[in-house]
Amino acid sequence: MADLLVVGSVALDSVETPFGKVREALGGSATYFSYSASFFTQVRLVATVGEDFPESHLRLLENRGVDIGGLQTSKGRTFRWTGEYGYDLNEAKTLDTQLNVFADFRPVLGDGLGRVPYLFLANIDPELQLDVLRQMKERPRLVALDTMNFWIQGKRDALRRVLAEVDVLTINDGEARQLASEPNLIRAARAISAMGPRTVIVKRGEYGALLMTEGTLFFVPAFPLDSVYDPTGAGDTFAGGFMGYLAAQDRIDAVAMRRAIVYGSVMASFTVEDFSLKRLTRLTPAEIAERYTAFHDLIRVEP
Amino acid sequence: MADLLVVGSVALDSVETPFGKVREALGGSATYFSYSASFFTQVRLVATVGEDFPESHLRLLENRGVDIGGLQTSKGRTFRWTGEYGYDLNEAKTLDTQLNVFADFRPVLGDGLGRVPYLFLANIDPELQLDVLRQMKERPRLVALDTMNFWIQGKRDALRRVLAEVDVLTINDGEARQLASEPNLIRAARAISAMGPRTVIVKRGEYGALLMTEGTLFFVPAFPLDSVYDPTGAGDTFAGGFMGYLAAQDRIDAVAMRRAIVYGSVMASFTVEDFSLKRLTRLTPAEIAERYTAFHDLIRVEP
Repeated sequence: MADLLVVGSVALDSVETPFGKVREALGGSATYFSYSASFFTQVRLVATVGEDFPESHLRLLENRGVDIGGLQTSKGRTFRWTGEYGYDLNEAKTLDTQLNVFADFRPVLGDGLGRVPYLFLANIDPELQLDVLRQMKERPRLVALDTMNFWIQGKRDALRRVLAEVDVLTINDGEARQLASEPNLIRAARAISAMGPRTVIVKRGEYGALLMTEGTLFFVPAFPLDSVYDPTGAGDTFAGGFMGYLAAQDRIDAVAMRRAIVYGSVMASFTVEDFSLKRLTRLTPAEIAERYTAFHDLIRVEP
Repeated sequence: MADLLVVGSVALDSVETPFGKVREALGGSATYFSYSASFFTQVRLVATVGEDFPESHLRLLENRGVDIGGLQTSKGRTFRWTGEYGYDLNEAKTLDTQLNVFADFRPVLGDGLGRVPYLFLANIDPELQLDVLRQMKERPRLVALDTMNFWIQGKRDALRRVLAEVDVLTINDGEARQLASEPNLIRAARAISAMGPRTVIVKRGEYGALLMTEGTLFFVPAFPLDSVYDPTGAGDTFAGGFMGYLAAQDRIDAVAMRRAIVYGSVMASFTVEDFSLKRLTRLTPAEIAERYTAFHDLIRVEP
């Protein structure tokens, strides 16, 4: 079992969907990622929060064994995001973003973090992602990166520089097409892989995820659910299950990657069953194992 | 190996997509279905065409071994459909429909057709589908039915009557939600199953297909393709591969159903690679076997 480092955001999210709403609930890419990955391995979190960040949220992460030694409390208010979803839960509409302390976030890898063998660069400014990579004292065994349209449009050069140095990119459907300037998804994934990451994971929301690794494709559906309440954090929870499993096994071969994608999908399927991290906070390892088995049944064809 | 009967339409299609167009090309649900299924088993076709129907199209079906003894030539012109697709190839826009001889189509099952053990009721008026069922001298081992929004809206009662008597329904995503008046796809499939068909196959275009059979789910993605030219006929080709495989094996258990869905997806993936039946007419059994293997690789996770 190997340690897993995540650098990203911790936020307070206000979210409304047709099925309910929450105000200033725990959110952020690094939060979802580390909570999810904590079911698999030792997670170390680097992020920043403001002085107003509720102590209870810190306890939640600590109780899952997440090392929050790298979580800086900075002068000011915590990053806040407000968004809503319509009945088509595939796309969030951002109503308000207050970066607050996140605007001045400069990740610092203290105390042994520079040698953590598995690294996830959650969706932040690609210049910061590159800076984190530069701070690593040893090249991690696996570096995965997430990004979004905002950086593809606004910081394409920096993004291309960091992409050239990572092993895995997780990116959503439309953003993959945008990054590659290519409408066909398979050709887009291939073009992105040529930019650096030998593994490209295209996230397709309720339609599942596609893994392209060294030209080979693997497809996994989203777990079919009776009720989806809030898709916020699904992508980061997915990445947490994916990286958490790989770090726990300390394997990055193709067989492990496929299982890891299924674990990622399992974790994401729980997240969307309630708002914020609510479903994850009542999740048990037995439920994860059970849904992993159900997932196998969902996609298994006898040869 | 068991025989397979299909009752549906044979048409001349004019189709335009961003990647090209064809005028008065061979089309129709029964055409795509029987051509596809002919790679697996003996297909018997019941449909109608007008006096203007090109002899060469008949030869095409005969050369694949399709029994066209039940294809009536009626006084008048052949059914014509004109449609176009935008870059989102998931939805056709119908520009023109000329039913012609199809308006008076009354399927007649002559000469041994009443005892064919596998039956596909392609997308026609549910009253005609019911009439075909009434003409069967023996209950087939498996009856599958396809339908569309036009009948769900306009002939709901007749559709419900025939649904109560079939084993398998193939239906697309939005139409499943419409038929069940239920936005959640899993609940919609369950509600439809309660109307009669113990197996419901929801077709999701480029996102694959979902099989619900006695409460158990199976999901298969669409085969990822570099180039999709024309999605016309994909659903009927899918059904042809599905029913063709089951009839060829003469098995309707869950293991066979899953393999059949994969064969259906394989056949559909070829159809969309060119206009009309062009790709299918140059298809070889070796290519089908190869893509079936590739499909397994695409979805396989070692336990």
